[in-house]
Amino acid sequence: MAPKYVLNYFDVWGTAEPIRLILHYAKVEFTDNRVKKEDWPAMKPKTPFGQLPTLEVDGKVINQSCTICRYLGREFGLAGSDNWEAAEIDAVVDNANDLRQQFRKVFEMKDPEEKKKMKETLLTETVPFAVSRLEKRLKNNNGYIVNGKLSWGDIYLVHLMDLMEDIISEDLKKTAVHALALRKKVHELPGIKEWIAKRAPNSFSAAKLLE
Amino acid sequence: MAPKYVLNYFDVWGTAEPIRLILHYAKVEFTDNRVKKEDWPAMKPKTPFGQLPTLEVDGKVINQSCTICRYLGREFGLAGSDNWEAAEIDAVVDNANDLRQQFRKVFEMKDPEEKKKMKETLLTETVPFAVSRLEKRLKNNNGYIVNGKLSWGDIYLVHLMDLMEDIISEDLKKTAVHALALRKKVHELPGIKEWIAKRAPNSFSAAKLLE
Repeated sequence: MAPKYVLNYFDVWGTAEPIRLILHYAKVEFTDNRVKKEDWPAMKPKTPFGQLPTLEVDGKVINQSCTICRYLGREFGLAGSDNWEAAEIDAVVDNANDLRQQFRKVFEMKDPEEKKKMKETLLTETVPFAVSRLEKRLKNNNGYIVNGKLSWGDIYLVHLMDLMEDIISEDLKKTAVHALALRKKVHELPGIKEWIAKRAPNSFSAAKLLE
Repeated sequence: MAPKYVLNYFDVWGTAEPIRLILHYAKVEFTDNRVKKEDWPAMKPKTPFGQLPTLEVDGKVINQSCTICRYLGREFGLAGSDNWEAAEIDAVVDNANDLRQQFRKVFEMKDPEEKKKMKETLLTETVPFAVSRLEKRLKNNNGYIVNGKLSWGDIYLVHLMDLMEDIISEDLKKTAVHALALRKKVHELPGIKEWIAKRAPNSFSAAKLLE
């Protein structure tokens, strides 16, 4: 029997959305529990580490977005065909999250001069470098990040691209050809296609975060 | 035949040290390549993502410290006995790294008033909460983080405790009984014991980082 999945998170995309995408792709039943802000203080101490998202699997519970994505990736045959491929997927995802941290640093910088400088470096150096490395990888792997086939890492990356939607400039589009093709391909996958057609839009703006 | 491992990193503990600990525990031959600062600019463009550490395995290369630890954990039977245990290990490590990010935020805060407040919250709320959750987990798992036996996650956590050495207060010691027992146990493991007896001391001070 298929396990009973419950995904707990707030009523936004946030760090739960890649998990939702993977679950929808796998076409398994799951409860997409949207925790109300006012219910969170009472729920928080009962979570493994005081954080959401958490995934319950037949009543057992883990937290951490990437951990959950990787776990489900393995469950659904989306985690590479051997240990090395699994590691390659993990590395790409960790690299993408490092990039995300760079965005967070700009967001958290209060000094306006410093912030401007950091934003400039991020958008003219850090992002183009990351995109160039990703493009090379996708080109060498039949349009996927690892071994010419879909993995949870591809879905995770596409989620990050969805988050960054409003800062993908026309210039960046010209260099991120394979990345955007991957995005289109993942958006068309059965299960994912239906989900993104009906999900609420992202409440987060990458452009605003950098302002 | 055992694969040929080359670990590339600078001549400090940094994010390569948990990898070194795992390799020493497994008692496999590896080249602990210490990259000189002056050689890094030429090497950087040749790495997968412009970062160290990287691990070469028979000439193939991956980056990202946690990814490499997890990969080696799987190679050496230190990654849980099933998908769920593997995920539990991953979650504990990710939670620990979230905590590490909180230290980094304090370090990066320039406003002295704000920094003082953040440090206070970190040391009186965040760290004690994390320790209490870890203690509960260790108590329920025979002194290890998952399923009563050693995993790469235990070694990773002990490395973080080694890094934090100089901020482990007497008060914290009283509450982190199981964590410190785990640390002692891991430090005594054959392979690790010999390595920590001869490695150069950490060049990093957690206390200084928070000043």
